Amino acid sequence: MKVLVTGFDPFGGEKVNPAFEAVKRLEDKIAGAQVIKVEIPTVFRKSIEILDKKIEEEKPDVVICVGQAGGRFDMTVERVAINISDASIEDNEGNKPIDETIFEDGENAYFSSLPIKSIVSNIRNEKIPASVSNTAGTYVCNHIMYGLLYLIDKKYKNIRGGFIHVPYLPEQVVDKRSTPSMNINDIVTALTVAIKTTVETQNDIKISDGKTH
Amino acid sequence: MKVLVTGFDPFGGEKVNPAFEAVKRLEDKIAGAQVIKVEIPTVFRKSIEILDKKIEEEKPDVVICVGQAGGRFDMTVERVAINISDASIEDNEGNKPIDETIFEDGENAYFSSLPIKSIVSNIRNEKIPASVSNTAGTYVCNHIMYGLLYLIDKKYKNIRGGFIHVPYLPEQVVDKRSTPSMNINDIVTALTVAIKTTVETQNDIKISDGKTH
Amino acid sequence: MKVLVTGFDPFGGEKVNPAFEAVKRLEDKIAGAQVIKVEIPTVFRKSIEILDKKIEEEKPDVVICVGQAGGRFDMTVERVAINISDASIEDNEGNKPIDETIFEDGENAYFSSLPIKSIVSNIRNEKIPASVSNTAGTYVCNHIMYGLLYLIDKKYKNIRGGFIHVPYLPEQVVDKRSTPSMNINDIVTALTVAIKTTVETQNDIKISDGKTH
Amino acid sequence: MKVLVTGFDPFGGEKVNPAFEAVKRLEDKIAGAQVIKVEIPTVFRKSIEILDKKIEEEKPDVVICVGQAGGRFDMTVERVAINISDASIEDNEGNKPIDETIFEDGENAYFSSLPIKSIVSNIRNEKIPASVSNTAGTYVCNHIMYGLLYLIDKKYKNIRGGFIHVPYLPEQVVDKRSTPSMNINDIVTALTVAIKTTVETQNDIKISDGKTH
Repeated sequence: MKVLVTGFDPFGGEKVNPAFEAVKRLEDKIAGAQVIKVEIPTVFRKSIEILDKKIEEEKPDVVICVGQAGGRFDMTVERVAINISDASIEDNEGNKPIDETIFEDGENAYFSSLPIKSIVSNIRNEKIPASVSNTAGTYVCNHIMYGLLYLIDKKYKNIRGGFIHVPYLPEQVVDKRSTPSMNINDIVTALTVAIKTTVETQNDIKISDGKTH
Repeated sequence: MKVLVTGFDPFGGEKVNPAFEAVKRLEDKIAGAQVIKVEIPTVFRKSIEILDKKIEEEKPDVVICVGQAGGRFDMTVERVAINISDASIEDNEGNKPIDETIFEDGENAYFSSLPIKSIVSNIRNEKIPASVSNTAGTYVCNHIMYGLLYLIDKKYKNIRGGFIHVPYLPEQVVDKRSTPSMNINDIVTALTVAIKTTVETQNDIKISDGKTH
Repeated sequence: MKVLVTGFDPFGGEKVNPAFEAVKRLEDKIAGAQVIKVEIPTVFRKSIEILDKKIEEEKPDVVICVGQAGGRFDMTVERVAINISDASIEDNEGNKPIDETIFEDGENAYFSSLPIKSIVSNIRNEKIPASVSNTAGTYVCNHIMYGLLYLIDKKYKNIRGGFIHVPYLPEQVVDKRSTPSMNINDIVTALTVAIKTTVETQNDIKISDGKTH
Repeated sequence: MKVLVTGFDPFGGEKVNPAFEAVKRLEDKIAGAQVIKVEIPTVFRKSIEILDKKIEEEKPDVVICVGQAGGRFDMTVERVAINISDASIEDNEGNKPIDETIFEDGENAYFSSLPIKSIVSNIRNEKIPASVSNTAGTYVCNHIMYGLLYLIDKKYKNIRGGFIHVPYLPEQVVDKRSTPSMNINDIVTALTVAIKTTVETQNDIKISDGKTH
């Protein structure tokens, strides 16, 4: 089995992106599966094009995109991506779309096809905080997740895919007040568990991990 | 013009629900439109059935559902509802669905057809904090918003509809630590602005109000 | 009985200070006591000098200083002021003391002589969130509180005095993300309760309102 | 040089206390100084008695007490301890003092004699978030810090002492929502830096690290 894992480059004035920092530290083989790691630019459209090419090239069985969610407290496995981009800050090439549809012929939203509840449960078993998130925002993270699931829906039916958000690293919050962070080793462990769980799980478990709002 | 506004009854151990507390204080006429107010039970399925009946009966031009988002800091106008229910607590009749599709023949998600950016902008002009939210959760609030937009899509094509979340009232946080709240008068003002804006706005403005995650 | 209530002028880039906005709206007579209201500059030293003069002039029985605690969720009645100034931003005349003792012949700290537990309890009875705080910071708020209690200790033995922090107003957080606020009417009610309680209470009640850290 | 470092045992329903978990992992020699580690019960009075005995026995040059501050985001070096105990929960032997003076003949407060600004600065240089805190609460942490500084003032004039609060470990927040944590290795590194800094620094640096409230 082959797993493609992507991480974004730094954006929004940050010097590092914990997503790719963690992705590049992953083992090359996890639970018997080959792990391909690729850095993707935090740029609308271009990020999806690069992902598409990489999928064509590598023909993975699973694609997991990883991004930074500065301000979140735990590993958050995204449930759904929506067909809209609404940027609060420019991307790394100066684009700032407002309320733009990502793909005109796409669904309003796509649900992750990763076993999200199993992943959350297994990360927590490793004593690392994790939860399901019901919004990946409206920036490039939601954009790539939507793009991935759109591509799967239209072109790569047999691939399973989804998105995981990671907190800031401690070094990123040294100059920010009251902002949570997570050690890089814990992020790497959590992503490793996510990959292992995806490789080994066909049907997700049914446990409650919803939010009232 | 006729506007139907719903608010949920109290849930999760609370004695009041700021949503209906505010809804019932709304004027009967706003911006020339008749305002119909109805309390809806915080119950999966039943809430949608009651809403459907009320729409059939009242034939409104606009439907705005309002719910409590305990822990949020500002008025949050929801952008999207997703086709899933995942309850972290029981509803008021003991239901606790996990990862259940709301309507098998519905879209993965529906976008609000209210002028959400205009509403947020106009509430802020009244000096009350407000923002667009990209998740209504996976509990009865998302459920009723999804149900409303599904009904509009399938049966009531000409109605515009959406959902607004309101913070706790101050009285609800007296026994909670570090939890934000909003005065009932401010919530009523904000909802009044939302109704007025919807009545008077055909095309939403394009201003950035997205989130990176 | 006469109660002197002070509120600071705006600082840190804010257009209003909720402290004086609330103070100036107080009734002139509360629980039979005369209420004298005075605005004080957010300036180290000068604020204490003006307070001293005002006390000499008015000969109040009680002095309550009020200040803005932007980011706090509730009314916070301060327990203690410490003999140090450590400014993170300049005051309104450009002073930015670092680790400076306020009065060389003062105690390390002074405790409020207001009935702080009774005040918190009574504000909460009005359905407005309140708690005891164990730090007034190290800026001008702690400075004036320390100055007041130093003056009481050295010159005005029979006066009772203390400090109350109030949250931002809603209008102040319209452009801030995820920041709590409190309606001006609720702040005025809470301060009125604080004054009434102080006038009517000789011995504070003993109820737990501590913090583990 | 000899440094005595204490950490509390678990309290408040927690299975571990990150304070002693980190303290027991410290090297036995840091910056040439001998490091003595001792676990102290989270109990009013008794904790101070044990500390007193240990100081008599070990005759350290420096004493650093360490405690858990669940909910804080970073390493917090305490500036001051106040002469009062006000417990919001019982200690580990069922005591729950309300507004009790710790030592009748003690000052209202004592300031840390550690180089707190240097410690914070050096921890941040290691890319670990840290700040000065102006309240150690009113529970056993403030109690032991006050007790330590009282003992130094009355009996052990040449010892330097103070208190450092540490966040929850990740494993402690797996079942808590939106609560920050810090990896044990980062806490150990930060405490090591604190000890090294104290050993090597006679006069603290003057940099701003105050709070407006």
